[in-house]
Amino acid sequence: MGIEPLQDYSRLCIHTMTTRPWAVEEAVAKYVAAGVGGITIWREALEGRSPEAVGRMARDAGLTIVSLCRGGFFAHSREEARRQAIDENRRAIDEAAALETPLLVIVCGADPDQSLETSRKQIRDGLGAILPQAEEAGVRLGIEPLHPMYADDRSAITTLKQANDMCAELQSDLVGVIVDVYHLWWDPDLEGEIRRAGREGSLAAFHICDWKTPTTDLLLDRGLMGEGCIPIRTIRGWVEDNGFTGFHEVEIFSKTYWESDQDEFLRQIMAAYLNHS
Amino acid sequence: MGIEPLQDYSRLCIHTMTTRPWAVEEAVAKYVAAGVGGITIWREALEGRSPEAVGRMARDAGLTIVSLCRGGFFAHSREEARRQAIDENRRAIDEAAALETPLLVIVCGADPDQSLETSRKQIRDGLGAILPQAEEAGVRLGIEPLHPMYADDRSAITTLKQANDMCAELQSDLVGVIVDVYHLWWDPDLEGEIRRAGREGSLAAFHICDWKTPTTDLLLDRGLMGEGCIPIRTIRGWVEDNGFTGFHEVEIFSKTYWESDQDEFLRQIMAAYLNHS
Repeated sequence: MGIEPLQDYSRLCIHTMTTRPWAVEEAVAKYVAAGVGGITIWREALEGRSPEAVGRMARDAGLTIVSLCRGGFFAHSREEARRQAIDENRRAIDEAAALETPLLVIVCGADPDQSLETSRKQIRDGLGAILPQAEEAGVRLGIEPLHPMYADDRSAITTLKQANDMCAELQSDLVGVIVDVYHLWWDPDLEGEIRRAGREGSLAAFHICDWKTPTTDLLLDRGLMGEGCIPIRTIRGWVEDNGFTGFHEVEIFSKTYWESDQDEFLRQIMAAYLNHS
Repeated sequence: MGIEPLQDYSRLCIHTMTTRPWAVEEAVAKYVAAGVGGITIWREALEGRSPEAVGRMARDAGLTIVSLCRGGFFAHSREEARRQAIDENRRAIDEAAALETPLLVIVCGADPDQSLETSRKQIRDGLGAILPQAEEAGVRLGIEPLHPMYADDRSAITTLKQANDMCAELQSDLVGVIVDVYHLWWDPDLEGEIRRAGREGSLAAFHICDWKTPTTDLLLDRGLMGEGCIPIRTIRGWVEDNGFTGFHEVEIFSKTYWESDQDEFLRQIMAAYLNHS
């Protein structure tokens, strides 16, 4: 039962964006020294580097590369921008393959200049366009629904139900869904939709952090597990009771933490992970 | 068909909170001079005044008092706070009756120290506790679902479906639901749930404003109609096609607008109302 407290760090994964001030080389070294099991690498962290080399470095150090973050942003009112997004996603799949990570996180996109329905159609079309390449590369596309407060320009997919529907429509083992507690904790249908994703074999990843009261910034004020009101352990129980055996990925965007000492922050993450996840 | 542009101000209502710098007396005078048809009065605006006298003044000036804003906040981990909330709501019903307005807006409440399920149960219990008094006073309780970004400490009711369910459970003509486009525009089930509310005779009020990109504050950065991405006219079409014939209530909380000249802001509201609602 997932509801039991965690006992070790073997399934703890940290996103490079969580410790943003650290370059990926430093993040790898620090995570390994702390006993963290996995890393999710953001594309920004690969800049100026060979993804093959970064992948080798992380694996040689003992980390599992859980995913590459992030592709998507398929919805644009201008057709040219939609074409560019598809090209960019093709490069992201190549990078994921080079990193030898099995999963590319997809933040679907939205455009305030068009309806959500239009954005959703463009998202489906964009995913359909890149899916053959993903299948060939063996890289799974993980659809991550975002909190409704990002429905204007980040994601027209705001509930796990919508992600599950999109997944069902695309009918490929190489498409899955991502449960991020920050985006989904408020949804009364969450447990049922996690059950459905488990049944359909599409639970691809599990992201954790917390919702603080008050939250002072829409983007960069996420909390450490235990600092907020999200029932993280309960939701972990739901995903694990429905067959998820992957990593628990700590994804925190926080100006406050980024401005703090990152070694101390990493220690706080390790403690919060066992106590509140 | 509600989708036609509006031609006049007879169904325009403004919340006193929208022009917060104005005292209620000034707001009434200004709204009337501009040709606005209705006013929703916030309890803050009644402070130090007799609600009977304010109600008489607004009606004598020619305004319809659309609702009193707001009761609710039933969810608290401490029992004493729950009892106090019920007492406070009884006072709000008395004020609404004294104002002779038919509707009390209910912001349901939430407490980050307890689960959303517990908060929802307390909300239902709280509404049940005050309902007999509301029925006796002939004041309808309008359940307003809030945006999920307020699920931590303002409302455990975040979708129109939840509000409709709560309404169905309470089984009283004196309970209805409020559609505020700011809170609900992102929801893929919105049209269907508006249809259901129309069928059940529970569409009690319709609030408008806009969602700006970027939104820089979770509470006080609402936009004027047309400044953002909400399909206001489309949603108005849905409520009106499903039987709603009431006012279109402009409810904007905005530090920027509150710091601006309120006469100019009122002129902007009047123009935006016809052009974008």
